[in-house]
Amino acid sequence: MLEKTTRVNFLFDFYQELLTPKQRNYMEMYYLEDYSLGEISETSEVSRQAVYDNIRRTESMLEAYEKKLQLYDKFQQRMHLIEQLEQMVVSHELKDIDSLIKSLRELD
Amino acid sequence: MLEKTTRVNFLFDFYQELLTPKQRNYMEMYYLEDYSLGEISETSEVSRQAVYDNIRRTESMLEAYEKKLQLYDKFQQRMHLIEQLEQMVVSHELKDIDSLIKSLRELD
Repeated sequence: MLEKTTRVNFLFDFYQELLTPKQRNYMEMYYLEDYSLGEISETSEVSRQAVYDNIRRTESMLEAYEKKLQLYDKFQQRMHLIEQLEQMVVSHELKDIDSLIKSLRELD
Repeated sequence: MLEKTTRVNFLFDFYQELLTPKQRNYMEMYYLEDYSLGEISETSEVSRQAVYDNIRRTESMLEAYEKKLQLYDKFQQRMHLIEQLEQMVVSHELKDIDSLIKSLRELD
Protein backbone atom coordinates (compact mmCIF):
# COMPACT_ATOMS: atom_id res chain seq x y z
CA MET A 1 0.00 0.00 0.00
CA LEU A 2 1.10 3.56 -0.65
CA GLU A 3 1.56 5.70 2.41
CA LYS A 4 -0.43 8.94 2.32
CA THR A 5 2.10 11.32 3.85
CA THR A 6 2.22 15.08 4.27
CA ARG A 7 5.51 15.05 2.38
CA VAL A 8 3.93 13.63 -0.78
CA ASN A 9 1.18 16.22 -0.55
CA PHE A 10 3.69 19.04 -0.32
CA LEU A 11 5.84 17.68 -3.13
CA PHE A 12 2.73 17.34 -5.28
CA ASP A 13 1.89 20.94 -4.49
CA PHE A 14 5.30 22.17 -5.58
CA TYR A 15 5.82 20.04 -8.67
CA GLN A 16 2.37 19.15 -10.00
CA GLU A 17 2.83 21.47 -12.98
CA LEU A 18 5.65 19.23 -14.18
CA LEU A 19 3.46 16.12 -14.26
CA THR A 20 1.29 14.83 -17.09
CA PRO A 21 -2.50 15.33 -16.83
CA LYS A 22 -2.95 11.59 -16.17
CA GLN A 23 -0.35 11.55 -13.40
CA ARG A 24 -1.92 14.63 -11.87
CA ASN A 25 -5.38 13.14 -12.07
CA TYR A 26 -4.43 9.92 -10.24
CA MET A 27 -2.50 11.87 -7.61
CA GLU A 28 -5.39 14.24 -7.00
CA MET A 29 -7.88 11.43 -6.66
CA TYR A 30 -5.65 9.40 -4.37
CA TYR A 31 -4.10 12.11 -2.22
CA LEU A 32 -6.47 15.04 -2.27
CA GLU A 33 -9.86 13.40 -2.71
CA ASP A 34 -8.87 10.27 -0.79
CA TYR A 35 -10.16 7.71 -3.31
CA SER A 36 -8.86 4.17 -2.90
CA LEU A 37 -6.76 2.51 -5.61
CA GLY A 38 -9.74 0.26 -6.37
CA GLU A 39 -12.07 3.22 -6.84
CA ILE A 40 -9.61 5.03 -9.11
CA SER A 41 -9.19 1.81 -11.08
CA GLU A 42 -12.97 1.55 -11.61
CA THR A 43 -13.45 5.22 -12.51
CA SER A 44 -10.51 5.23 -14.92
CA GLU A 45 -11.18 1.78 -16.39
CA VAL A 46 -7.61 0.59 -15.91
CA SER A 47 -6.31 -2.13 -13.62
CA ARG A 48 -5.70 -1.45 -9.97
CA GLN A 49 -2.07 -2.45 -10.54
CA ALA A 50 -1.67 0.13 -13.33
CA VAL A 51 -3.00 2.88 -11.06
CA TYR A 52 -0.68 1.74 -8.27
CA ASP A 53 2.36 1.68 -10.57
CA ASN A 54 1.54 5.08 -12.02
CA ILE A 55 1.19 6.69 -8.60
CA ARG A 56 4.36 5.05 -7.33
CA ARG A 57 6.30 6.24 -10.39
CA THR A 58 4.90 9.73 -9.95
CA GLU A 59 6.03 9.76 -6.33
CA SER A 60 9.56 8.85 -7.47
CA MET A 61 9.45 11.66 -10.00
CA LEU A 62 8.38 14.11 -7.30
CA GLU A 63 11.30 13.01 -5.13
CA ALA A 64 13.66 13.34 -8.10
CA TYR A 65 12.44 16.90 -8.72
CA GLU A 66 12.87 17.71 -5.05
CA LYS A 67 16.42 16.37 -5.13
CA LYS A 68 17.14 18.71 -8.05
CA LEU A 69 15.25 21.85 -7.04
CA GLN A 70 14.73 21.51 -3.25
CA LEU A 71 11.60 23.65 -3.30
CA TYR A 72 10.03 21.88 -0.35
CA ASP A 73 13.23 21.95 1.65
CA LYS A 74 13.71 25.67 1.02
CA PHE A 75 10.07 26.30 1.78
CA GLN A 76 10.47 24.67 5.19
CA GLN A 77 13.62 26.65 5.92
CA ARG A 78 11.91 29.86 4.85
CA MET A 79 8.84 29.20 6.99
CA HIS A 80 11.09 28.56 9.95
CA LEU A 81 12.86 31.90 9.43
CA ILE A 82 9.57 33.74 8.94
CA GLU A 83 8.27 32.31 12.20
CA GLN A 84 11.38 33.51 14.01
CA LEU A 85 10.90 36.90 12.40
CA GLU A 86 7.31 37.08 13.62
CA GLN A 87 8.37 36.19 17.13
CA MET A 88 11.02 38.89 17.13
CA VAL A 89 8.49 41.48 16.02
CA VAL A 90 5.86 40.37 18.54
CA SER A 91 8.35 40.39 21.41
CA HIS A 92 10.12 43.60 20.24
CA GLU A 93 13.41 41.70 20.40
CA LEU A 94 14.98 43.04 17.22
CA LYS A 95 18.70 42.74 17.91
CA ASP A 96 19.16 39.68 15.64
CA ILE A 97 16.72 40.75 12.96
CA ASP A 98 19.46 41.85 10.52
CA SER A 99 21.10 38.44 10.41
CA LEU A 100 17.72 36.79 10.12
CA ILE A 101 16.79 38.92 7.11
CA LYS A 102 20.19 38.11 5.64
CA SER A 103 19.50 34.36 6.04
CA LEU A 104 16.14 34.83 4.36
CA ARG A 105 17.79 36.62 1.47
CA GLU A 106 20.48 34.00 1.05
CA LEU A 107 18.01 31.14 0.94
CA ASP A 108 17.18 31.91 -2.68
CA MET B 1 22.03 36.16 -32.71
CA LEU B 2 20.96 35.17 -29.22
CA GLU B 3 20.57 37.99 -26.77
CA LYS B 4 22.57 37.54 -23.56
CA THR B 5 20.07 38.83 -21.03
CA THR B 6 19.98 38.86 -17.25
CA ARG B 7 16.68 37.02 -17.46
CA VAL B 8 18.20 33.99 -19.20
CA ASN B 9 21.00 33.95 -16.63
CA PHE B 10 18.50 33.89 -13.78
CA LEU B 11 16.31 31.27 -15.42
CA PHE B 12 19.40 29.14 -16.00
CA ASP B 13 20.29 29.54 -12.34
CA PHE B 14 16.87 28.34 -11.21
CA TYR B 15 16.31 25.49 -13.65
CA GLN B 16 19.73 24.22 -14.70
CA GLU B 17 19.27 21.04 -12.69
CA LEU B 18 16.42 20.10 -15.03
CA LEU B 19 18.60 20.33 -18.15
CA THR B 20 20.74 17.63 -19.74
CA PRO B 21 24.54 17.82 -19.24
CA LYS B 22 24.97 18.86 -22.88
CA GLN B 23 22.40 21.66 -22.62
CA ARG B 24 23.99 22.83 -19.40
CA ASN B 25 27.44 22.76 -20.93
CA TYR B 26 26.48 24.93 -23.93
CA MET B 27 24.57 27.36 -21.72
CA GLU B 28 27.49 27.68 -19.31
CA MET B 29 29.97 28.31 -22.09
CA TYR B 30 27.74 30.82 -23.85
CA TYR B 31 26.23 32.70 -20.92
CA LEU B 32 28.61 32.29 -18.01
CA GLU B 33 31.99 32.02 -19.72
CA ASP B 34 31.02 34.26 -22.63
CA TYR B 35 32.25 32.02 -25.44
CA SER B 36 30.94 32.80 -28.92
CA LEU B 37 28.81 30.30 -30.84
CA GLY B 38 31.77 29.77 -33.17
CA GLU B 39 34.11 28.96 -30.28
CA ILE B 40 31.64 26.53 -28.70
CA SER B 41 31.19 24.91 -32.10
CA GLU B 42 34.98 24.37 -32.44
CA THR B 43 35.46 23.10 -28.88
CA SER B 44 32.51 20.73 -29.11
CA GLU B 45 33.15 19.62 -32.70
CA VAL B 46 29.58 20.25 -33.81
CA SER B 47 28.27 22.81 -36.29
CA ARG B 48 27.70 26.38 -35.21
CA GLN B 49 24.06 25.94 -36.25
CA ALA B 50 23.65 22.90 -33.98
CA VAL B 51 25.01 24.86 -31.02
CA TYR B 52 22.72 27.77 -31.83
CA ASP B 53 19.65 25.50 -32.12
CA ASN B 54 20.47 23.70 -28.90
CA ILE B 55 20.86 26.93 -26.95
CA ARG B 56 17.68 28.38 -28.41
CA ARG B 57 15.73 25.23 -27.55
CA THR B 58 17.16 25.30 -24.04
CA GLU B 59 16.04 28.90 -23.62
CA SER B 60 12.51 27.89 -24.62
CA MET B 61 12.62 25.09 -22.09
CA LEU B 62 13.72 27.50 -19.38
CA GLU B 63 10.80 29.80 -20.23
CA ALA B 64 8.43 26.82 -20.20
CA TYR B 65 9.67 25.82 -16.73
CA GLU B 66 9.27 29.39 -15.53
CA LYS B 67 5.72 29.46 -16.85
CA LYS B 68 4.99 26.33 -14.82
CA LEU B 69 6.92 26.98 -11.60
CA GLN B 70 7.46 30.79 -11.55
CA LEU B 71 10.60 30.48 -9.46
CA TYR B 72 12.19 33.60 -10.92
CA ASP B 73 9.01 35.61 -10.60
CA LYS B 74 8.55 34.60 -6.96
CA PHE B 75 12.22 35.26 -6.30
CA GLN B 76 11.83 38.82 -7.55
CA GLN B 77 8.71 39.37 -5.49
CA ARG B 78 10.43 37.96 -2.42
CA MET B 79 13.52 40.12 -2.90
CA HIS B 80 11.30 43.16 -3.20
CA LEU B 81 9.56 42.32 0.08
CA ILE B 82 12.85 41.60 1.83
CA GLU B 83 14.20 44.97 0.74
CA GLN B 84 11.12 46.69 2.13
CA LEU B 85 11.61 44.74 5.34
CA GLU B 86 15.22 45.88 5.60
CA GLN B 87 14.20 49.49 5.09
CA MET B 88 11.57 49.23 7.81
CA VAL B 89 14.12 47.85 10.24
CA VAL B 90 16.77 50.45 9.36
CA SER B 91 14.31 53.32 9.70
CA HIS B 92 12.58 51.85 12.79
CA GLU B 93 9.25 52.22 10.95
CA LEU B 94 7.67 48.95 11.97
CA LYS B 95 3.97 49.70 11.80
CA ASP B 96 3.43 47.74 8.53
CA ILE B 97 5.84 44.95 9.30
CA ASP B 98 3.10 42.43 10.15
CA SER B 99 1.41 42.69 6.78
CA LEU B 100 4.77 42.53 5.06
CA ILE B 101 5.68 39.31 6.87
CA LYS B 102 2.26 37.98 5.95
CA SER B 103 2.91 38.74 2.25
CA LEU B 104 6.25 36.99 2.51
CA ARG B 105 4.59 33.93 4.01
CA GLU B 106 1.86 33.83 1.39
CA LEU B 107 4.30 33.99 -1.48
CA ASP B 108 5.11 30.28 -1.10
